[in-house]
Amino acid sequence: MAEEQYDLVILGGGTAGYVAAIRASQLGKKVAIVERSLLGGTCLHQGCIPTKALLKSAEVVQTVAQASEFGVNVACFDFDIADMMKRKQAIVDQMYQGVQHLMKHNHIDVYNGTGRILGPSIFSPQCGTIAVEFEDGESTLIPNQHVLIATGSRPAELPFLPFNHETILSSDDVLQLETLPHSMAIIGGGVIGLEFASLLNDLGVNVTVIEAGPRILPNESKSVAQTLRRSLTQKGVTFYENTALSEETVSTEQQDGVTIQLENTEQNFDKCLVAIGRVPNTDDIGLNNTKVQTNQQHHIQTNGYQQTDERHIYAAGDCIGQLQLAHVGSKEGITAIDHMFDAGPIAVDYNQMPRCIYTIPEVASIGLNEEQAKEQGYETTVQKVPFAAIGKAVIDTPDKDKGFCEVVIDNATNDILGLAMIGPHVTELINEVSLLQFMNGSALELGLTTHAHPSLSEVLMELGLKIEGRSIHV
Amino acid sequence: MAEEQYDLVILGGGTAGYVAAIRASQLGKKVAIVERSLLGGTCLHQGCIPTKALLKSAEVVQTVAQASEFGVNVACFDFDIADMMKRKQAIVDQMYQGVQHLMKHNHIDVYNGTGRILGPSIFSPQCGTIAVEFEDGESTLIPNQHVLIATGSRPAELPFLPFNHETILSSDDVLQLETLPHSMAIIGGGVIGLEFASLLNDLGVNVTVIEAGPRILPNESKSVAQTLRRSLTQKGVTFYENTALSEETVSTEQQDGVTIQLENTEQNFDKCLVAIGRVPNTDDIGLNNTKVQTNQQHHIQTNGYQQTDERHIYAAGDCIGQLQLAHVGSKEGITAIDHMFDAGPIAVDYNQMPRCIYTIPEVASIGLNEEQAKEQGYETTVQKVPFAAIGKAVIDTPDKDKGFCEVVIDNATNDILGLAMIGPHVTELINEVSLLQFMNGSALELGLTTHAHPSLSEVLMELGLKIEGRSIHV
Repeated sequence: MAEEQYDLVILGGGTAGYVAAIRASQLGKKVAIVERSLLGGTCLHQGCIPTKALLKSAEVVQTVAQASEFGVNVACFDFDIADMMKRKQAIVDQMYQGVQHLMKHNHIDVYNGTGRILGPSIFSPQCGTIAVEFEDGESTLIPNQHVLIATGSRPAELPFLPFNHETILSSDDVLQLETLPHSMAIIGGGVIGLEFASLLNDLGVNVTVIEAGPRILPNESKSVAQTLRRSLTQKGVTFYENTALSEETVSTEQQDGVTIQLENTEQNFDKCLVAIGRVPNTDDIGLNNTKVQTNQQHHIQTNGYQQTDERHIYAAGDCIGQLQLAHVGSKEGITAIDHMFDAGPIAVDYNQMPRCIYTIPEVASIGLNEEQAKEQGYETTVQKVPFAAIGKAVIDTPDKDKGFCEVVIDNATNDILGLAMIGPHVTELINEVSLLQFMNGSALELGLTTHAHPSLSEVLMELGLKIEGRSIHV
Repeated sequence: MAEEQYDLVILGGGTAGYVAAIRASQLGKKVAIVERSLLGGTCLHQGCIPTKALLKSAEVVQTVAQASEFGVNVACFDFDIADMMKRKQAIVDQMYQGVQHLMKHNHIDVYNGTGRILGPSIFSPQCGTIAVEFEDGESTLIPNQHVLIATGSRPAELPFLPFNHETILSSDDVLQLETLPHSMAIIGGGVIGLEFASLLNDLGVNVTVIEAGPRILPNESKSVAQTLRRSLTQKGVTFYENTALSEETVSTEQQDGVTIQLENTEQNFDKCLVAIGRVPNTDDIGLNNTKVQTNQQHHIQTNGYQQTDERHIYAAGDCIGQLQLAHVGSKEGITAIDHMFDAGPIAVDYNQMPRCIYTIPEVASIGLNEEQAKEQGYETTVQKVPFAAIGKAVIDTPDKDKGFCEVVIDNATNDILGLAMIGPHVTELINEVSLLQFMNGSALELGLTTHAHPSLSEVLMELGLKIEGRSIHV
């Protein structure tokens, strides 16, 4: 048994977990993290960071390929996926060291093993003691006052097409490719599928995206999704929507590849990425020893302050199945800690969380889209400003379609219900909107704020003014 | 005489002028602009837009040159300044058409001639009628209810080194260069001088910046200025500070160049850019027929709502000599109109205006720096967050020194007095800070706002939290 009693033990050292640990440490609490793999979790090792590192390399490829548009003549160029992977790994390693340093700096103990929650025992009248099993077969018990479950998620498999890590890949596998395939089928037109579609297409892979539903990005604005689809199609990506696959339409019997029946034609692909979503890591963490509830998708159920049905056990991040985004996990983790230790918690408002898709062009949004707002009974007004009206966008991007920014307003209150953008650097621009929503600002306040000229963010100013019939340049 | 009486005549169709015209038109007013050159003024034709277009080309050159850092191998490349100039001009032309369209769309009459304000006459008991002189020698009078002076500014000359447009250049001249010089002396280490230093150096010109004062960017944070100086020096720019030139130390007697005595050595330069500031265009516009006051620098004096000593005559933009930035001019123009026509004017708060320098690395700031705050009697706390702590900055930039973000806090009130940044895309990031300041937000509100991960803007969140001792990653 660990010698000390912890104020808090966190199961999982991914973003939600380690950020929560730092926050608890700031509040003077004694904290341990139990992590079975690497600190930093999916975001650092299989998600945000490695994909964005590779997408940056792909962006450089595109800049080089388009250089002549800017008066720069590149005689010939090529790229080396191995070098890109090396750079990606160097960035991940550097940031991994950073996270390890943060743990030491904040006096957070890290147990490298698999943690499970125990039920009540003679030593501990309430459930929650953490049993840690180490790789070498040793184990220990960590008594504590509170537990935060932040065990994250893993790529979901198709039952008829399990990952074989050679031809049927998860997103984790794609990040480890040593050579690029000639062709890739991507099953799933959500964020992960589309980011890889953009990346691989920009690197010269023949990409086909297969979406079971009626359209890609079902949770995003229809016009944004259509614009992204059109843009990626122009760059060479093929899309099939309304195309649910089954055992009958997919075959991996070929030695080197996958055959998929698409609109009555059999098509062969070197590899297939299955990106149909993620499942929570909640199946083997001892929840059966507690009153913690999960839903049908095995996501842990919490109240608005991340508290489960066991008052001293909280949960945050992908395992609770809200927006599965690193910054949302961080926020949930901090909310959990601030509630646990009575430090002025702010419940996470998912309508105020920015969402980003790092395709080229980028997509970013916050709150509701028009369809969602209508479903929820709002009478809405939608206004749009094209990036073509913004000088900096004209300067920065040679693309004919430069994207746009769209806002959904509640007619009854004039509140901004949601805002979506597609275009250059919108994954940065959305943060200003996040501030506006957090401060409960109005479209007019956005419009009256002086935005530097020339900047892409002027699109937000014009949009804010447009709602009031006061836009200058549109 | 023009047939109709105008509610407003605007002298000058630059940014301040045409934006004000649109605003007045929105309020149902009959508006005319008198412009002696091209609508869009300095910003569109000699300032923001053409320089940023060229800087974008230079950025592409840098990306291509650094491509191997991202796994992209460019065998060889070159660039063509003529192509870059062509692209720049195409962008300017496109936006010029846009402004012309806006004038028509808003029913604003444009008189292409030189306007001057007349004094009282038998036709008009108050001064303010505008006399327009056309290029063909014709002229007309435009009676009106109100005048807005937005005549802008022009590059200042050194008395001993007048522009000859061949070797002694203004910024306007540099934007028309057909070939690049081998070497360029830039007199003046302010925004304009440094943007051209960055641009020309990135395009292979040997650049020497000569600043009369003790340091470059005298109005910006010392540490930001030092970081920019170091960064540009590493890229090859030479700096001389505390170096006031005179008739004795500069000679243009050589047939092909300029000789400047620098630290007792005579150095030859192919060309010399004089970027010591701008002078207002207020000398020949009929102010002597009015009670409008100017200061020693010939800037027009106004109250906080842009109103001159003639109640019906307003002034906005560079000619009033506040922050000479396009977006500030726009704001002043709108304030003038809203005051003139009683439409809820908001006085411009210059401490809330974002300021941008589009060098590589970029610089952006708002409000006071530490020195200025101390001079004004504030007790301050300064906090910094380096971009190296931000994942997206690690991904985006291969530079070792990635820059930082710095905030100056008033100890008495906890208010943000100023914020300065140097690093990737800070000319976008500053707009979020502008919103925060406009909404009178606190550092904590900035820190508690969810910022998308990974994004560069996370630097602002960490900084906001750091002030409260709550930062996660630093």
